[in-house]
Amino acid sequence: MASTTGLPKVLIIGSGGVGAVSALSLHTRNRSEVTMVIRSDYDKVVKEGYTFDSCTYGKITGWRPHNIAKTVPEAQEKFGNFDYIIVTTKNIPDGYSTCEDIIKPAVTPGVSTIILMQNGIGIDGPMKEAFPQNVTLSAVTHIGSTNYHAVIENKGADNVFLGDFDHSFDTCSPKVQKIINDFIHIYKNDNDLNFIRIDDNVKKTRWEKLIYNSVFNTVTAIVNLDVTRCQINNGNIDLFGPAMDEVLAIAKAEGVIIDEAEKKEKFLHIGDGLLYTPSMCVDMRKNQLLEIEIILGNPLKIAKKHNVPTPTLSVIYSLLSMVQFRIKESVGFLKINEDDFKGNSDDLHQIYLDKYIHKQ
Amino acid sequence: MASTTGLPKVLIIGSGGVGAVSALSLHTRNRSEVTMVIRSDYDKVVKEGYTFDSCTYGKITGWRPHNIAKTVPEAQEKFGNFDYIIVTTKNIPDGYSTCEDIIKPAVTPGVSTIILMQNGIGIDGPMKEAFPQNVTLSAVTHIGSTNYHAVIENKGADNVFLGDFDHSFDTCSPKVQKIINDFIHIYKNDNDLNFIRIDDNVKKTRWEKLIYNSVFNTVTAIVNLDVTRCQINNGNIDLFGPAMDEVLAIAKAEGVIIDEAEKKEKFLHIGDGLLYTPSMCVDMRKNQLLEIEIILGNPLKIAKKHNVPTPTLSVIYSLLSMVQFRIKESVGFLKINEDDFKGNSDDLHQIYLDKYIHKQ
Repeated sequence: MASTTGLPKVLIIGSGGVGAVSALSLHTRNRSEVTMVIRSDYDKVVKEGYTFDSCTYGKITGWRPHNIAKTVPEAQEKFGNFDYIIVTTKNIPDGYSTCEDIIKPAVTPGVSTIILMQNGIGIDGPMKEAFPQNVTLSAVTHIGSTNYHAVIENKGADNVFLGDFDHSFDTCSPKVQKIINDFIHIYKNDNDLNFIRIDDNVKKTRWEKLIYNSVFNTVTAIVNLDVTRCQINNGNIDLFGPAMDEVLAIAKAEGVIIDEAEKKEKFLHIGDGLLYTPSMCVDMRKNQLLEIEIILGNPLKIAKKHNVPTPTLSVIYSLLSMVQFRIKESVGFLKINEDDFKGNSDDLHQIYLDKYIHKQ
Repeated sequence: MASTTGLPKVLIIGSGGVGAVSALSLHTRNRSEVTMVIRSDYDKVVKEGYTFDSCTYGKITGWRPHNIAKTVPEAQEKFGNFDYIIVTTKNIPDGYSTCEDIIKPAVTPGVSTIILMQNGIGIDGPMKEAFPQNVTLSAVTHIGSTNYHAVIENKGADNVFLGDFDHSFDTCSPKVQKIINDFIHIYKNDNDLNFIRIDDNVKKTRWEKLIYNSVFNTVTAIVNLDVTRCQINNGNIDLFGPAMDEVLAIAKAEGVIIDEAEKKEKFLHIGDGLLYTPSMCVDMRKNQLLEIEIILGNPLKIAKKHNVPTPTLSVIYSLLSMVQFRIKESVGFLKINEDDFKGNSDDLHQIYLDKYIHKQ
C-alpha cells in the first residue's frame, strides 16, 4: 500500500519504553510515516494516545503515531510495505516466538531494512540468515524508558548507536552506508538530548553493554533483589567483579578490545546508591520469560568456542535456566508431565529436550 | 527439681519432625523422663497431643511426652535439671539466636550431656566451647519426618548415628563412652526400624550427609524448584555433580576419607523420580531463615583453610547469602535504611557489617 505521506515508512514492532520513544522521535522529525504494532494497550492508545514524561521530548499527552496496528500482519496489510522495521521487542528465542518469526510478515524481501534495537549478543546473525536479501542493522540505545499502560517514563537521553554488527561503516557497501545515513536523517531531531550516530564498532558497543547486563540483570533476577542490595552482600567482590572479568575475557577472545579496567570500574559503580532493579529482575517479578539466551547463553557459547573459562557465569547461567524453567512452567508455556521424569536423573535432561523442546 | 519418675531426664529442644519422633522413641522405651519445649503448637499439644503417622511407630493419636514447656527457662524451672539435652532446632548462627544461647538456661554445668541432632558442619565446636564442663555429642539422623501443626508424617526409619565429633569411641574418655552407651540404652526400642548405634566417625557421617545437603538444599532454595525439576534442566551435570566434587575435595582436605565415586553416584540419584523438595527450599517458600552457614558457609571456611578451590560452591553461597538477606529483610529481622547505602558500592558490604551485623 502506498504511503499516504510519500515519506519512507517505518514500522516499530515492540511498543515498550524504547519503541515508544523511537516512534516519538521519528514522528517529531516528521520525515517518515510511523506505524506501531501495539498489542495490550491498543484500545487505550487509539482512544487516548500515549502520555510521555521524557527528559528529551518533554511532557506530552494524547500522542499517537501516524498508524497503529494490532498485529504485524495487520500492519503489513494496511500500512506496508515498510522501508524500515525497528525491532524493540524482548528477544527470547527459547520463548513463544523468535524475532525472525515475529517480524516475517512485514519484511519485504530486498526492500525492508531491519534495525535491531535490542540488547544482547548473537541476535544479528539469525536475522541476517533469515532475511538474506535485506539489510539488518544493529542499534544500541542508552535510554532508560519504561512503558506502563501507554504512560512512558523516559529518564535517559534518547541516544542511539547505529551500525552493522559485522562491519565498520567504511567496510559496508555503499548501499548499506546510504541506508544508515538515510535513517539517521529521518531520526535525528534538533534536540541536544536526542542523538543518533554511526557506530563504527557495534559489536564492541554491544559487548560493553553486556558487561552490565549479563552480570547485574542475571544475578538480580535469580535472587530477587535490586543491585544495591546485592552489593550490600559483597556482590561486587564475590560475584559482579569476577563475572565481569569473564565477560571481558570472552569479548577479548572474540577480538573485541575493551579498556577492561576502566569499563569494569565504571559498570561496577554505575548504579551506586540508586537501588536500581534491572529489567530482567523486573520481568522475573512479573513472572515473564527472561532474555537469558541473548544476555548470557550466547556469550557462553562464544566462550566455549574460544575455550575461555567461565566458572562464575556458567553457574549463574545454570541457575538462571532453572528460574526460566520455573517461569515457563508457571505461566503454562511448558506443561510438565511428572510421570515422564521418574527415571534415572542422568536421562532427565535428554527426556526434557526430546519431549518438550525439540518437539515443540 | 527431682524427677517424678526417678529416671534420667531428657529435654528435647526443637519440636519439629525429628524432635517429636525422638521424644516418641524415648517415651516408648520408657527408661527416661521426656520433656519437650514446644512453642507454636503448645496449646494444641496440651489439649490434643501429637498425631503420628510413622513407619517406625505406627499410627498414634493423642500422644504427649511426660512434660511440656513453652520455653527453655520454663522447662528448666519446672522439670530440670536435665541429664540429656537433645537439640533438634534449626541451627542458624546468623539468625535470631545461636543454639548455644537457646539451650543455655537448661544446661547444668558438669551434668547435662548435649546431643546435637542437627545437620551441618561446624556446630560441635561452638557448643563445646560454650559449655566446656559438659559433654557434647553429635547425632546424625536419617529419618524423613515433618511436623505440620503437631501432626507428624514420618516416612523414614528412625536411624540415629551417635558419637563424638572429634573422637572415635575408643579414643573417648570412659566417662564419655558410658554416656554414649547409657543414651543408646534409653533410646533403642525393640523395633526393627528404630536403631541407634555408636558412630565411630561422626565427622565422616556429617560430611557424607553434607554431600547431599550442601548441594541440593542450596540450589533448590535459590531457584525455588524441586530436585527433579533442577535435574530436568541438566542440574546433575551443570551444578550438582561439580558441587559434590568440591564438597568431597573439602572433606578430603579435612582428612575425611569418603569413597568419592560411590557416594557421588549414590547422592546424585537418591532422589530420582521423587520430585522431592529439600527442607531449605521448603524454608525459603515459608519465608523462614535458612541454615546457610552450617550447610555451606562453614564448609567453605574449611575449604579456604585448606586452599581447596570451590568455584561452584562459592557462587552458590554468594547467591544464597543474598536470598537469606532477602528473607531477613522481608520478615523484619533486618530493617535496612536505604540512605545508609547511597555511597560507593565498594563500601556497602562494610557499612552493612558495621551498622547492621556487628552492632546487633
